[in-house]
Amino acid sequence: MEQILQQAKRAKQASEELALWGAAAKQRLLEAMAAALEAGAEDILRANRQDLARAEAEGRGRAFLDRLALDPARIADMAAGLRQVAMLPDPVGEVLGGGTMPSGIRVVKRRVPFGVVGMIYEARPNVTIDAIGICLKTGNAVLLKGGREALCSNIALAEIAEKAGQEMGLPAGAIELVRSMDRAAAAYLMTLREYIDVLIPRGGAGLIRTVVENARVPVIETGVGNCHVYVDASADLEMAVDIVLNAKASRPSVCNAIENLLVHRDIAETFLPVAAARLSAAGVELRGCPRCREIVPTMRPATEEDYRTEFLDYILAVKVVDSLEEAVAHINAYGTRHSEAIVTRDLTAADYFQQRVDAAAVYVNASTRFTDGGEFGFGAEIGISTQKLHARGPMGLAEMTTYKYLIAGDGQVR
Amino acid sequence: MEQILQQAKRAKQASEELALWGAAAKQRLLEAMAAALEAGAEDILRANRQDLARAEAEGRGRAFLDRLALDPARIADMAAGLRQVAMLPDPVGEVLGGGTMPSGIRVVKRRVPFGVVGMIYEARPNVTIDAIGICLKTGNAVLLKGGREALCSNIALAEIAEKAGQEMGLPAGAIELVRSMDRAAAAYLMTLREYIDVLIPRGGAGLIRTVVENARVPVIETGVGNCHVYVDASADLEMAVDIVLNAKASRPSVCNAIENLLVHRDIAETFLPVAAARLSAAGVELRGCPRCREIVPTMRPATEEDYRTEFLDYILAVKVVDSLEEAVAHINAYGTRHSEAIVTRDLTAADYFQQRVDAAAVYVNASTRFTDGGEFGFGAEIGISTQKLHARGPMGLAEMTTYKYLIAGDGQVR
Repeated sequence: MEQILQQAKRAKQASEELALWGAAAKQRLLEAMAAALEAGAEDILRANRQDLARAEAEGRGRAFLDRLALDPARIADMAAGLRQVAMLPDPVGEVLGGGTMPSGIRVVKRRVPFGVVGMIYEARPNVTIDAIGICLKTGNAVLLKGGREALCSNIALAEIAEKAGQEMGLPAGAIELVRSMDRAAAAYLMTLREYIDVLIPRGGAGLIRTVVENARVPVIETGVGNCHVYVDASADLEMAVDIVLNAKASRPSVCNAIENLLVHRDIAETFLPVAAARLSAAGVELRGCPRCREIVPTMRPATEEDYRTEFLDYILAVKVVDSLEEAVAHINAYGTRHSEAIVTRDLTAADYFQQRVDAAAVYVNASTRFTDGGEFGFGAEIGISTQKLHARGPMGLAEMTTYKYLIAGDGQVR
Repeated sequence: MEQILQQAKRAKQASEELALWGAAAKQRLLEAMAAALEAGAEDILRANRQDLARAEAEGRGRAFLDRLALDPARIADMAAGLRQVAMLPDPVGEVLGGGTMPSGIRVVKRRVPFGVVGMIYEARPNVTIDAIGICLKTGNAVLLKGGREALCSNIALAEIAEKAGQEMGLPAGAIELVRSMDRAAAAYLMTLREYIDVLIPRGGAGLIRTVVENARVPVIETGVGNCHVYVDASADLEMAVDIVLNAKASRPSVCNAIENLLVHRDIAETFLPVAAARLSAAGVELRGCPRCREIVPTMRPATEEDYRTEFLDYILAVKVVDSLEEAVAHINAYGTRHSEAIVTRDLTAADYFQQRVDAAAVYVNASTRFTDGGEFGFGAEIGISTQKLHARGPMGLAEMTTYKYLIAGDGQVR
């Protein structure tokens, strides 16, 4: 506990300096870190092998080991990511508004860093470097709490970044990696309102829930996506099949992949057999409502629970609906407000869907897989917010800042 | 519990309709409510007298009774407030950004209501009408939990607003007043993440802390102001006295009033006697550090606790500092990130102060009392945020909204 408190205090102190860094200095800093990562690749891989060996010994599955594993190409990707963030425009200092008020005071609303960003994540070491890059670029100190299984890798990565930073004059404390891995430590970290300005959990639904339920520090909830495609009665069926296939099967493990397919009853008989064939050929298991199964009897029956589940796998829950209205009501009841899509040729249906569906990103005739900072033109992404406070959808650099009002007068009183 | 859950569900349902209301309809709605308040003044006053009688019987103090009491003028003020909000531009629907991406998808970032806003507040019945006006204007349903002592007044106010709303077609549930006054009910309300999108506590430090510590719904922390004026070595002393006097004594009970005065040692001997005389004449009790008391021996000694206290009263903690740097460090350590001011003629000092002080509003040569939605040109204010997530400083209509991304394609997949 005491150690985490000290780390948070150091980060706070560092953040006061870091907030004043100019764009050019931060660009050079991230470029130096990228070079240091490449130069330190062997150390990183050695540490990563320790993590992998332990995770294998603990009997972790293939998907887990894949997320944990680093190789020279992944290290090169991390370095490239840092260089990309380095080149982005610096949002800090941007004037967002203001004016001279009737009282004569002159108000400027200026974008400033948060201060200290706490990141809580699982065993994906690349998040360590992503978070360091985006936080430092936006003038924030970063307090990192990664998964236990990636600790050796994270220590190696953070030490290399810190050392490269020190050579560029980065204040001590700007990068703090929590090394204590017990749950009480994480719980304590989440209470440090005085030192941590925002907490961003990145990982599975369980991690997010734990943070949301335990944190006293303001949280940005990210990345749980129980997403839908709704195929309207008027849909172009070929387009609909392509979109459903892409949204489900191009990368089932990510949050912007769909977990549910809703089909208007008027086209269910023509659409479902084609879609089912294509999806099955791509290895997707379909779980359908009774009306689905009348049309495609090979579908397994879907349970109520299936419609609430983020499978993150080659599984799709399917449901025939009587109307657009029913589709929207289903999405608002079962969705996680992440990404939702309609396939339609009907303008009224498209408008209704976009206005009524409560989600960060609402698509007409495109795949939900586009909900991504890169695809939205942000150049970088720290996560995808599924809450409404502060930021919604992909969070880029601007979303990692707050603002303050700077007021100048010549003695005004009220 | 069950009742609150039902209220939250009704509010959620109403919010889906209300989000689609146009600017003109919402304007007419608020104007109708203003007229209904005036027409219902006698009912409101009768209910208020019940609250007052009970509060008096419970031995409440004068300041408490003053906040609770309504009279025809205060009801007229509430109606005028509604009419003012009615006339403001509607932020809902504003396009905040977007573009056509390399993939061909067309992205529009559009401002939308939160959905359901939960307000938790104390025994000030005017907050009921303020909150109804601002929430409905921004297309949000509102779930109100006011102080126990104002329950009769709040019921009368909410019923009049609801009835006027129904005549204008307002969906049932758009205004929900919680009538259960036990603590468990409030605690339960704070957990309803599925139905409440944001929770705004308004009241004293105790209320805010309770909400921050217990809520699972995202919170915007408001209104605790341990604010400072720092009088720099180069200050215009007459201006400094005017600003300090205004910031402390023009209305000590509000959050943008100062609680602390910091004075550079180089001018302490000339400034403090003059300031102390003017402040004492205004009824302000001064509590000073030992160096202050050498200069103004009539000051009471200040304790460490005094520097951390939001007095909200005619009391001011005073401290002599050795430098601008010490002043800024003191403010960042003791302040609540609300409003902070420097009085100086030195450009470097002004810049240093504005850049380094971590607060929502940082003033040069003006009173902290200007931190207010009206003074900042917002036309209305739901509270003053002291957190960095989502909104900082005065929150007007725009701050009561979120956004969503609307994406249109013609079959794009990724």
